[in-house]
Amino acid sequence: MKTQRLILVSNDDGYDSNGIEAMIEVVRPYGEIVVVAPVEGRSGMSHAITIKNPLRLNKLKQEDNVTVYSCSGTPVDSVKLALNQVVKRCPDLIVSGINHGSNASISIIYSGTMGATIEGCINGIPAIGFSVLDHSRNADFTLAKKYAKTIIENVFEKGLPDGVCLNVNFPVVSHEEFKGIKICKQTRGIWKEEFDKRVDPQKQDYYWLTGYFKNLEPDDQTTDEWALKNNYASVVPIKIDFTSYPMMDELKKWNL
Amino acid sequence: MKTQRLILVSNDDGYDSNGIEAMIEVVRPYGEIVVVAPVEGRSGMSHAITIKNPLRLNKLKQEDNVTVYSCSGTPVDSVKLALNQVVKRCPDLIVSGINHGSNASISIIYSGTMGATIEGCINGIPAIGFSVLDHSRNADFTLAKKYAKTIIENVFEKGLPDGVCLNVNFPVVSHEEFKGIKICKQTRGIWKEEFDKRVDPQKQDYYWLTGYFKNLEPDDQTTDEWALKNNYASVVPIKIDFTSYPMMDELKKWNL
Repeated sequence: MKTQRLILVSNDDGYDSNGIEAMIEVVRPYGEIVVVAPVEGRSGMSHAITIKNPLRLNKLKQEDNVTVYSCSGTPVDSVKLALNQVVKRCPDLIVSGINHGSNASISIIYSGTMGATIEGCINGIPAIGFSVLDHSRNADFTLAKKYAKTIIENVFEKGLPDGVCLNVNFPVVSHEEFKGIKICKQTRGIWKEEFDKRVDPQKQDYYWLTGYFKNLEPDDQTTDEWALKNNYASVVPIKIDFTSYPMMDELKKWNL
Repeated sequence: MKTQRLILVSNDDGYDSNGIEAMIEVVRPYGEIVVVAPVEGRSGMSHAITIKNPLRLNKLKQEDNVTVYSCSGTPVDSVKLALNQVVKRCPDLIVSGINHGSNASISIIYSGTMGATIEGCINGIPAIGFSVLDHSRNADFTLAKKYAKTIIENVFEKGLPDGVCLNVNFPVVSHEEFKGIKICKQTRGIWKEEFDKRVDPQKQDYYWLTGYFKNLEPDDQTTDEWALKNNYASVVPIKIDFTSYPMMDELKKWNL
């Protein structure tokens, strides 16, 4: 008897987002689905974990092959709780998303969606984060759902090397305009002019995080930003070993 | 006239920790010091940013060449606010720490201290995160302070390449036992059995994040964990481009 696949789903927009519904739809045909996702939106939480407060885990529903839990913590807390307290065995795949909004370029570092993905990868599980470049609650996931399947089936067939996961982003285009999937590198980029300074009714200053993204290599056709701008979906393989090996050699020549 | 250096200091243990006091002492001789650090401990915040709540910035003191601000947000928020709203020009150096506790191996991913460091690096500023392997409030920073100076002076002299920052950790040993500074790679490792499950007075389950670190390559003498265990300080060069370039070539052979 062939054992059914076990797939863990998480995200950073919360267990009740349309994006996670789309994600569940994508993976449902492949096996048993366990969803553990934040109880509310936790965008920008990166790889944060909750140390000072206890965590809550609530089983919300179990139907057919899909069980859904909400977690009071971050996306990474959700994956940790899922792996340590929920699933009976190690999942065959972790998918995170589908995120409402881009996680291309430097946004990967701030992204809770990619935090959950990378946490899966740290645990030795094939992991993929999916995002569409549309922040709205009613973003259209049709294109993303179709090509997410292609990517997931390739990962099932070929696996991912230890310490590598995938960051997948989809442009907002029609099926006709869509040019296909492109393997890319993370674009060098930065967020600029990031604060909106205001004064509250008590005459105290406060700041809202805002700003705009600046692409530092707009002409590089190997980058994820270029791919997305040119109607491709971008797939960036991400490693969890952050060591700069060339710089190790350089540092050995310093007077340390 | 030589312009004075401008150095930004942050951390994740809060503006009033002993570690940040030690850090300020280290950099004070090198120029004008601006401290922007979380108003309270924000360990485990990784690269998280605050999107849903406004941020507050409070100027706490200005004496000699040191100005101290507290920030209501995360370590990364603190660096962003400092760069966007506090400093008049781009700092010559960002130092984060000295952290109470290890940020070696995979802990770099969860670390707010390294979040602040990496945010400096994203902004093109030479950035170094310092940690000692002692969580206690009264950790001894004597050794770390001495060798942090050496590392900082080397960075002033030689600079750091674009997109690379340093993760420096110090063991808890005497000056006699200390073997020196070792250039290392990030150890492959993972946190295991991470939750302490309890029942609250209302008979509801809750979970505390806990667990122990497992080194997946304990015999590799090029790793930061090996160095620290063998009485060296570890210096790991960290890159902010997470792309796995070998895997890009591999993925291009897939049916995508």
